[in-house]
Amino acid sequence: MKKTIAIDMDGVIADTEKHFIDWYERDYGIRVKREDILGLSEAEAFPDGAVRKFVNTPGFFATLPVMAGAIEALKKLQEDFEIYIVSAAVEFPQSLSEKLTWLNTHFPFITWRNIIFCGDKSIINTDFMIDDLIRNLDTFRGETLMFDAFYNINHNHHRRVNNWPEVLDYLKDKA
Amino acid sequence: MKKTIAIDMDGVIADTEKHFIDWYERDYGIRVKREDILGLSEAEAFPDGAVRKFVNTPGFFATLPVMAGAIEALKKLQEDFEIYIVSAAVEFPQSLSEKLTWLNTHFPFITWRNIIFCGDKSIINTDFMIDDLIRNLDTFRGETLMFDAFYNINHNHHRRVNNWPEVLDYLKDKA
Repeated sequence: MKKTIAIDMDGVIADTEKHFIDWYERDYGIRVKREDILGLSEAEAFPDGAVRKFVNTPGFFATLPVMAGAIEALKKLQEDFEIYIVSAAVEFPQSLSEKLTWLNTHFPFITWRNIIFCGDKSIINTDFMIDDLIRNLDTFRGETLMFDAFYNINHNHHRRVNNWPEVLDYLKDKA
Repeated sequence: MKKTIAIDMDGVIADTEKHFIDWYERDYGIRVKREDILGLSEAEAFPDGAVRKFVNTPGFFATLPVMAGAIEALKKLQEDFEIYIVSAAVEFPQSLSEKLTWLNTHFPFITWRNIIFCGDKSIINTDFMIDDLIRNLDTFRGETLMFDAFYNINHNHHRRVNNWPEVLDYLKDKA
């Protein structure tokens, strides 16, 4: 049986950072620079309640850019692993259908059997988890890969991966 | 830490059997009797593609009746266990928002953190699983409770529970 990987959406296969920066500039006229927000939370990086406003705006999740290298990487990983998309989407009910459409558009090789929308990820049991959020990685029982993000830059108790080529390189002998 | 239970929706906390019987009678003029469909699949019990048609009809999941005793039972279980609703809903994309609304309406004491919409349930890791489908129970690593349904009547390799009072009775010393 293939080893299993739980792969997060926002901040991992979807480039939420770029999307927040673009929408914030569009609505507030300020282009946030990555070097200025290292170590901040999303709410601190994009103030005035912008994050909560954006994620509750219809179309936000539908128009997320794909993270660089994610499509090629997931296709490659699928050859040797059973991969599952695991997204904490239930907190934002209107995001569910947008996220599903987005996945079917950009990752049509991932079928409905391998998609999980959840709240808390603590009951997900796979061999690996690739996620950007400490709270998801900390309760996971398998091996963790922390996908680099400005808000996790000061946390170093999980293996950091900076991009999708690094993920592939690390996992190439782990199948 | 409380022990965890994964609880299915359709056929377990939602009375899909009653709903199929009612809709089939409404559309086909035939009242299906439970004693005539024991051991059949849903597709055999409600022929002419009725099942697939119904589950793809907007409103089907929104109007499902609650299974007798389910609300009281889940409230009671929540005192001693961490309970998660785990529904294989991703196969039917339009059902996602209906299922979430349905849960918030009938089970408002279950928060988004404890709701999981998935395809395959094989990566769900809880102490117990309550489900009506053999395919979900067979791949589960914890203790299984098979909720009685006409289509699982001939399967006996999981502990059968006939109704919610029986579930409570069995789990009362297991917390």
